[in-house]
Amino acid sequence: MAKDLDSTLRLLHAGGTTATAEMERCLDRAHAPECQHVFTPLLAGQAAREAANPGQAHRPLAGLAVSVKELFDMQGMTTRAGSTVLAEAPPAACDAAAVQRLRAAGGAVIGRTQMVEFAFSGVGTNPHHGTPAAFDGRFGALPGPARVPGGSSSGAAVSVATGAAFIGLGSDTGGSIRIPAALCGIVGFKNTARLVPTSGAVPLSTTLDTACAMTRSVPDAVLAHEILAARRVTRSQAPLSAWRLAVPGGVFLEGLEPPVRSAFERSVEQLRRAGARIVEIELPEVAQLSGLQATGGFAAAESYAWHRQHLAQSGPAYDPRVRGRIERGARMSAADYIDLLHARTAWIAQIEAAIAGFDALLSPTVPILAPLLASVAPADGTNPQQDAARDAEFGRVNALLLRNPSIVNMLDGCALSLPCHQAGELPVGLMLWHAAMHDDAVLNVGLRVEEQLQES
Amino acid sequence: MAKDLDSTLRLLHAGGTTATAEMERCLDRAHAPECQHVFTPLLAGQAAREAANPGQAHRPLAGLAVSVKELFDMQGMTTRAGSTVLAEAPPAACDAAAVQRLRAAGGAVIGRTQMVEFAFSGVGTNPHHGTPAAFDGRFGALPGPARVPGGSSSGAAVSVATGAAFIGLGSDTGGSIRIPAALCGIVGFKNTARLVPTSGAVPLSTTLDTACAMTRSVPDAVLAHEILAARRVTRSQAPLSAWRLAVPGGVFLEGLEPPVRSAFERSVEQLRRAGARIVEIELPEVAQLSGLQATGGFAAAESYAWHRQHLAQSGPAYDPRVRGRIERGARMSAADYIDLLHARTAWIAQIEAAIAGFDALLSPTVPILAPLLASVAPADGTNPQQDAARDAEFGRVNALLLRNPSIVNMLDGCALSLPCHQAGELPVGLMLWHAAMHDDAVLNVGLRVEEQLQES
Repeated sequence: MAKDLDSTLRLLHAGGTTATAEMERCLDRAHAPECQHVFTPLLAGQAAREAANPGQAHRPLAGLAVSVKELFDMQGMTTRAGSTVLAEAPPAACDAAAVQRLRAAGGAVIGRTQMVEFAFSGVGTNPHHGTPAAFDGRFGALPGPARVPGGSSSGAAVSVATGAAFIGLGSDTGGSIRIPAALCGIVGFKNTARLVPTSGAVPLSTTLDTACAMTRSVPDAVLAHEILAARRVTRSQAPLSAWRLAVPGGVFLEGLEPPVRSAFERSVEQLRRAGARIVEIELPEVAQLSGLQATGGFAAAESYAWHRQHLAQSGPAYDPRVRGRIERGARMSAADYIDLLHARTAWIAQIEAAIAGFDALLSPTVPILAPLLASVAPADGTNPQQDAARDAEFGRVNALLLRNPSIVNMLDGCALSLPCHQAGELPVGLMLWHAAMHDDAVLNVGLRVEEQLQES
Repeated sequence: MAKDLDSTLRLLHAGGTTATAEMERCLDRAHAPECQHVFTPLLAGQAAREAANPGQAHRPLAGLAVSVKELFDMQGMTTRAGSTVLAEAPPAACDAAAVQRLRAAGGAVIGRTQMVEFAFSGVGTNPHHGTPAAFDGRFGALPGPARVPGGSSSGAAVSVATGAAFIGLGSDTGGSIRIPAALCGIVGFKNTARLVPTSGAVPLSTTLDTACAMTRSVPDAVLAHEILAARRVTRSQAPLSAWRLAVPGGVFLEGLEPPVRSAFERSVEQLRRAGARIVEIELPEVAQLSGLQATGGFAAAESYAWHRQHLAQSGPAYDPRVRGRIERGARMSAADYIDLLHARTAWIAQIEAAIAGFDALLSPTVPILAPLLASVAPADGTNPQQDAARDAEFGRVNALLLRNPSIVNMLDGCALSLPCHQAGELPVGLMLWHAAMHDDAVLNVGLRVEEQLQES
């Protein structure tokens, strides 16, 4: 499939290609049918000009294509965030901080990308502007009827998986980078939230929101993170066997669909054969999370605070699946929110103590394969019974998709999802994760793990 | 009046006194009638033993007396926090962090001190355990009928003003150190909250709570702060004229009682004559604070989260004036609380920009003199009409007392209150203040200001 950024940059530096030629290739991909509903809009002319600008040549991204989730401000454009509610909002006065950093590094923005309305679910459907179909970044088009790409950064994932962009800027509040990365066979890295500024992005949960990106390889994830976080990752040459790895049981491994279970177990086995020391541990503290959030989570309360005026004015214009999730926040009291803040702090301390002896934990990113779009498509009003069944199925798969990734958001941690399926299989993501500020260890382990999984 | 810590330490080092002799003097003061209702309890035997311990001699506090507001855990004792509700709580397993630091520095704890129930008001009354009377640390007993000492660190202030302790450990959430310091003619320094750990103290507002202390001079305030914050204050030899000072108008100067106005204006004039450059500025952003807190403040919501189980079980055992203030928090929604957090952040940025050109601001600590205890005494049920009138007066003076100091808590700032009245006048406090982490500038200005005000 499409080359990754790392090898394209090497080719470019060796004179084997030009940024202009690469942008033409990306634009071809962006115009292909598999990119339907991905760009909102495609910025073909501007991207081609930026790629052709000789001033870009010496910057880290050298004028190559990046895409921007339409959650992030871009100067002169309205930030719609997947909604119709904000369609008439004034254009942004300046680029969001993350967009500024990608541009300053020489990224050429090929387009803004589709997303779940206000980033509030993990499935990837959007009733207003259409839902991109999942595409496997490793082995190409998926067989059979269309599947959802995962969300909320749905278009970002497909833009990267199809080769239309090298980096897809997105956000991750409960898995919105890692879920679509897993379902689209690419790499998604959710850094520790504080490392990348979220200014200029429409907030979902100010406590949990993380600005981060998807790529087609782990070296690309490292580069994208270095640009977004404006820092260097300390790279290690230590072999896979030098790292202390663990597979936590319990919640993370519950209800895995058989293809997910077999890809995950096969990958762990491959890594062990390659010398990795992987122990199995219990992490019973994780099961406390549902009790912790019984009175409502951060996203509901914090999004309600942001949306309540819009809801009062334009409630019916929201995706009902999103609106219902935001409105749950209206019922939360300040005292419950304060209790949640303190309970989270205590919970984080417990988990950090329990995993302190490891460099990274291994879990399936999500327990299921990409659901068929038809099974969760937005209601169209033609068949109320079918609509209700799809809504129910949406609720079921949304909870499953968010389950594992959101644990890391509650932990204020970092996590890398990379593909671990083989040819002929649907995409499956392997998640390497740890607590806050363990980003470099997780990325270094990820580099070694990717090498092993690709070798075998 | 009683010597300050600084001069006592010098005398001690010169062999002119001993820690044992000083502790005897402090215990004499503690047993005097002006310390009625101050200690809860006095720890005479233990304090005398600690003062006599030769191991203390080489520590910064050399075995001299410190008092501890009963908000802070002391190992083996129940932390009552001015209430009856916690009377049966288990004894604390270890000292609060601030108490540990005072003890490690050689402080001998002479006793725990009385406080407003759960620290929730600025007047200083306590219907359960009695209200200490205000005492002027500079000129001795106040004339006429008893006045309130200010709160919530009521006993801490009187323990220091009477000379029973050199340092009174307390807390300041909306003025609880500075109000009693002003009404008792002593020095109170509210450091930037993050500089001193609050662990082991019953919380009032986890956002605003500050562990800090009262003393009889500014050099003592510097020493106490260095011990509590485990850091060195960078001392400046710059003269008073080198500092850029300002008096903000508006809210800070509204409704000053004439003696407060005259002491404040006289002090500013004295400082100007001594070379201080003091400009008058407008700070209209301060007036936005009431709108910001219209849906309820941090203390109500955060104390309600902590107290709601106790309230459900033992509501009638609370001081009704405190209970009513906590219960306001029950009505606040998570969305309002989240909005308040964000509005505060924006407001702080505005104020910081407006005062960036100054080293310290000068304001009256509180706009009124210490109210007569009889005018605000807790209801006793003998005369419902009188009780209602006192409750109303309590509400009025409480709002006035908290008004100026609480602005600095909302700013996340730091502030020093030092006496600026003269012989024959009731105590009046001058507040030097600035934004977060300007503690050293405020303390250095305070050293110069105190020298000038004592000279004239």
